[in-house]
Amino acid sequence: MQQHFASDNYAGICPEATAALLEANTGHAPAYGDDDYTRKVSDRLREIFETDCDVYFVFNGTAANSLALATLCQSYHSVICHQLAHVETDECGAPEFFSNGAKLLTAAGEQGRLTPEAITEVVTRRSDLHFPKPRGLTLTQTTEVGTLYLPDQIAAIADTARQHGLRVHMDGARFANAVASLGVAPADITWRAGVDVLCFGGTKMGLPVGEAVVFFDRKLSEDFAWRCKQAGQLASKMRFLSAPWLGMLTDDVWLKHARHANAMAQRLSAGLVAAGIELLFPTEANGVFARLPAPVEAGLRAKGWRFYTFIGAGGARFMCGWDTLPATVDAILADIRNLTGAGDAIRS
Amino acid sequence: MQQHFASDNYAGICPEATAALLEANTGHAPAYGDDDYTRKVSDRLREIFETDCDVYFVFNGTAANSLALATLCQSYHSVICHQLAHVETDECGAPEFFSNGAKLLTAAGEQGRLTPEAITEVVTRRSDLHFPKPRGLTLTQTTEVGTLYLPDQIAAIADTARQHGLRVHMDGARFANAVASLGVAPADITWRAGVDVLCFGGTKMGLPVGEAVVFFDRKLSEDFAWRCKQAGQLASKMRFLSAPWLGMLTDDVWLKHARHANAMAQRLSAGLVAAGIELLFPTEANGVFARLPAPVEAGLRAKGWRFYTFIGAGGARFMCGWDTLPATVDAILADIRNLTGAGDAIRS
Amino acid sequence: MQQHFASDNYAGICPEATAALLEANTGHAPAYGDDDYTRKVSDRLREIFETDCDVYFVFNGTAANSLALATLCQSYHSVICHQLAHVETDECGAPEFFSNGAKLLTAAGEQGRLTPEAITEVVTRRSDLHFPKPRGLTLTQTTEVGTLYLPDQIAAIADTARQHGLRVHMDGARFANAVASLGVAPADITWRAGVDVLCFGGTKMGLPVGEAVVFFDRKLSEDFAWRCKQAGQLASKMRFLSAPWLGMLTDDVWLKHARHANAMAQRLSAGLVAAGIELLFPTEANGVFARLPAPVEAGLRAKGWRFYTFIGAGGARFMCGWDTLPATVDAILADIRNLTGAGDAIRS
Amino acid sequence: MQQHFASDNYAGICPEATAALLEANTGHAPAYGDDDYTRKVSDRLREIFETDCDVYFVFNGTAANSLALATLCQSYHSVICHQLAHVETDECGAPEFFSNGAKLLTAAGEQGRLTPEAITEVVTRRSDLHFPKPRGLTLTQTTEVGTLYLPDQIAAIADTARQHGLRVHMDGARFANAVASLGVAPADITWRAGVDVLCFGGTKMGLPVGEAVVFFDRKLSEDFAWRCKQAGQLASKMRFLSAPWLGMLTDDVWLKHARHANAMAQRLSAGLVAAGIELLFPTEANGVFARLPAPVEAGLRAKGWRFYTFIGAGGARFMCGWDTLPATVDAILADIRNLTGAGDAIRS
Repeated sequence: MQQHFASDNYAGICPEATAALLEANTGHAPAYGDDDYTRKVSDRLREIFETDCDVYFVFNGTAANSLALATLCQSYHSVICHQLAHVETDECGAPEFFSNGAKLLTAAGEQGRLTPEAITEVVTRRSDLHFPKPRGLTLTQTTEVGTLYLPDQIAAIADTARQHGLRVHMDGARFANAVASLGVAPADITWRAGVDVLCFGGTKMGLPVGEAVVFFDRKLSEDFAWRCKQAGQLASKMRFLSAPWLGMLTDDVWLKHARHANAMAQRLSAGLVAAGIELLFPTEANGVFARLPAPVEAGLRAKGWRFYTFIGAGGARFMCGWDTLPATVDAILADIRNLTGAGDAIRS
Repeated sequence: MQQHFASDNYAGICPEATAALLEANTGHAPAYGDDDYTRKVSDRLREIFETDCDVYFVFNGTAANSLALATLCQSYHSVICHQLAHVETDECGAPEFFSNGAKLLTAAGEQGRLTPEAITEVVTRRSDLHFPKPRGLTLTQTTEVGTLYLPDQIAAIADTARQHGLRVHMDGARFANAVASLGVAPADITWRAGVDVLCFGGTKMGLPVGEAVVFFDRKLSEDFAWRCKQAGQLASKMRFLSAPWLGMLTDDVWLKHARHANAMAQRLSAGLVAAGIELLFPTEANGVFARLPAPVEAGLRAKGWRFYTFIGAGGARFMCGWDTLPATVDAILADIRNLTGAGDAIRS
Repeated sequence: MQQHFASDNYAGICPEATAALLEANTGHAPAYGDDDYTRKVSDRLREIFETDCDVYFVFNGTAANSLALATLCQSYHSVICHQLAHVETDECGAPEFFSNGAKLLTAAGEQGRLTPEAITEVVTRRSDLHFPKPRGLTLTQTTEVGTLYLPDQIAAIADTARQHGLRVHMDGARFANAVASLGVAPADITWRAGVDVLCFGGTKMGLPVGEAVVFFDRKLSEDFAWRCKQAGQLASKMRFLSAPWLGMLTDDVWLKHARHANAMAQRLSAGLVAAGIELLFPTEANGVFARLPAPVEAGLRAKGWRFYTFIGAGGARFMCGWDTLPATVDAILADIRNLTGAGDAIRS
Repeated sequence: MQQHFASDNYAGICPEATAALLEANTGHAPAYGDDDYTRKVSDRLREIFETDCDVYFVFNGTAANSLALATLCQSYHSVICHQLAHVETDECGAPEFFSNGAKLLTAAGEQGRLTPEAITEVVTRRSDLHFPKPRGLTLTQTTEVGTLYLPDQIAAIADTARQHGLRVHMDGARFANAVASLGVAPADITWRAGVDVLCFGGTKMGLPVGEAVVFFDRKLSEDFAWRCKQAGQLASKMRFLSAPWLGMLTDDVWLKHARHANAMAQRLSAGLVAAGIELLFPTEANGVFARLPAPVEAGLRAKGWRFYTFIGAGGARFMCGWDTLPATVDAILADIRNLTGAGDAIRS
């Protein structure tokens, strides 16, 4: 099937994850996470994060984020997020469902990033009984618009959060792309910067299914296994969720793939600029956001290309995955140039 | 690793499911179920059930059953189940969580089966405002104690349910074993007998992850995709949940594996009886329940065998899976005979 | 104690409600609503609304609105409301709690009113699985900024709602003030205009405690008594909730009191304008919203006056109740004139 | 209207509560509990309990118990209760609703009382992930069958609870009757015996509406006001909930009324025994439970007497209230004697 730019979850399973999955498919293994694969990959995550964090594997990002946010607050509390945050715009009320009613309070911020000022404004706006008390904060790294938070930016936000009694969650659906792009230690943009719990995305990185919830503050994860069980997020054949992570986290395979996806985004981004297309946000990881002229957008769709219209930002979103081929990038760029007339101009 | 009898979810992925999974790992596919594998297997399920049912794939049995039960009732209603039902004893409150508080009302019944009389007793006991009105009924087929409901038994129960305004759910974590053992058409023990919604177990049957929720009454499944999404049960790379079902449902692979598991249970059951061990329930599918003398139980555990103590029935539970080897059955039987002294007796 | 303008719930119980309460305090009465007072007042409400509506009494407006909204949707649906709606801004997540996660989608609108256009925009923005499907709409009559919907405006909104599959709820915390001001039949701004369920506010009207939930579409109220019971909203000594309504609904006492409150708001409004204070919204019922110069606001508070700063509209809110005395209005106006200097000017 | 024995909530408002209610109906008072009546009665409760407890007023017992239990646990935890406990049998799933799914685990116990042994059995039965971890325990004082826990019994239970990590809640719907009957200090059967939170029943004691939630462990009540608000349990005109308590708690009015109700139960109990009727439980407070011969039960109902059939205990329940007249007791006893023929025997 033709490659697309709709989402990095259109990609399949990367070879290393596939190999690890098949290797784990040997004989019997105790269910519900009491197996060697799960233990090994949990230890590997502790190595990668350089700390004794508490690790759980759940089925998808909706659940990972919602369950993690629910550990930060009770139903009568609230969680602050960016107005473009996935938890607010694309989870069909999952955070409210899992928390039994905690409200998300949205804040604005340039280029998809929250700021200490915006958080302070939201948190200090009300303190009466008729408003859910803010107790949590969620950052998305890589952001919803393909930008990144620098370690210092996260630290500043976490400091602000702490001053107001908020715990800090990071939605890391594309955490790998952030680490690969920033070239930092995973710890530098998580617990060292003040993050309490990270949802580390596996699916978009190249796994078949599953995300890791990583608690740096282990008090938050008290009885979290029971929370997962009750919420339908405890896999019986857990090894098939956890083992593919082993393939991914060995020899920095996850970063290799993320760097590739990021590079494809750069290739696409550069090509768009060269074709005279305006970018909506700087391309810092594996997503490219562009203001396509309507005929170009229509033309691409007519040629069968799939990509999202990003309502929040008024443009088109192109996501690159671990498997995006340079040829695919070049092919869509060629179509774009043809549609804009830039192709003709160059050829003339 | 040594084979065990703790649960049929200790088994790995069967070869046909593995092959289908790998075959689906080609190129890009639209996310969230809008892919050809999911369409094909949904159609295949409609063929198998000989009706235009509505099909959804979710991650595990906890979620499948809880989401399905939540379609039968509101939070202030109740659902009748057998006192040994998994939803009551082993789901950590998941049905209550997903339904936001619907109570399970338990009824007794010989050999793990509900009866029309027991249901009528529960449903007519109270009708006041202070008690959650019964609106749903759940049967487990294969039951928790390895027995089966015959088509007529299901029909009689469903008739009773209907008379009292209850909708009927079937927990089919081991549905394949039931169909294989009874030798009936799947329709005969579901919609033709009055079942409104079936949770068709995939994991214990040989899949890596995932169950199918099959609605025979399509009014119940209105907006069910939204329900799944909100509850963290919509897979982004859905093809890896659905494609393995294709491998399973082609050429009756699912029944072949189920028949094997059932046969292994018969082999074990016969061996236990021959060794003078009392069975707690007739062996009708892939589970064997036996009253082990304490020294035998301790001796088996000392030899490394894993199996569950079944609290509700005061004995030991041995489950056979698609991959249980005759040699494994023979090995545990040999150990049992040695422990009971029956081995010596026979040899002498 | 000094009278205030903070809220119409600072007022006590009106004499007619008190008399009815005391009259009901005779001998024994069956609990949970199975008493004559509750039957009589339910019948009286059916008379007043000229239709066979279904009536329930609950303890407060938070519960009335949240329970009513929960009948319109499931947890994975959403409800459209004005961005200033009380259910969004002042209920601490109660609608989300009672519905187990249904999101409120806010729409803008001049003078506190929703419009068909704004509703259409919200409802047609998304139709994918990742967004909770809109199924309900809530209007506030009297609006949060003291304005009113005319019957035709409600009908136009309800038509739009119906076209998009939304059921219509009216938050009538100050319904009495709306009826009194518009001089219409209660039916004209409810079911005749397309409203499915009304929360008819009792407390602000002069009762000690309690609101009525009035279902014009009786299909929505199926098992609503159970919903109330489970949610802690079924009074055991129900007669003390319902009987005061009898006093209120006899001889149009409710409208007499509401007209008085509205008249006091007019008196205040006129006085403010005369004192050169800008009104933020037209005064159409019992609330007055004004842009007070900071020294005036501070001066009033220094003199002990209580009123709310209305964050959403950037001004001060003054509410008049059934018991607000003309002398109280005149006293605060005199203080305002003194603080603005208008007093001096006039005296000079 | 004729007096009945169906429930102590058939009674009206006692004169002292009525007087306090009317006295509070003077002028304006700040809403939501920020008023002098609420402050005074909270202080009075602290005096009565001889400790700095945290006090909240909610609308009814369903909500009081459910909200209090929800502070003891998360949704994936469980709460142990007696199998006859009101929270299990008569709240329509309210505890599960407010806690978002926490299961109630029932234990048996003679005469309506839990024992340390029964609690230990339930709490140690399971410790796996598939079962909700017990974190709370609820006692009912006066029990559902009219018996009492002695201070030492409560202390023994609370010790057991504490050893297993359970917090202790007391459902005190008839707490007044218990204190009056035992002649102890309220502290002796609550915090001094290890109770963490008490729901102190007001309605059955003689109030129109409302119960007090009294936290002896103030860590449990963190943000409880927000919890109440979100759950629709924060009264706007709070003074009308709290002020009647003032009338009740002055000069031990509450104990005077409770002693009277208890005395009426003794009178009824003695009369039943004299008439040859078997008591099901000792009469220790204001409820009498008896095994009525079917013709007697039918005869009483034919004469218009209302009382409950107590399903759990297989008999009839007669409750006495603050207003039960000796003449009412004598009248039902006369009817019973006539129906049993004992009347004739005595007369002869």
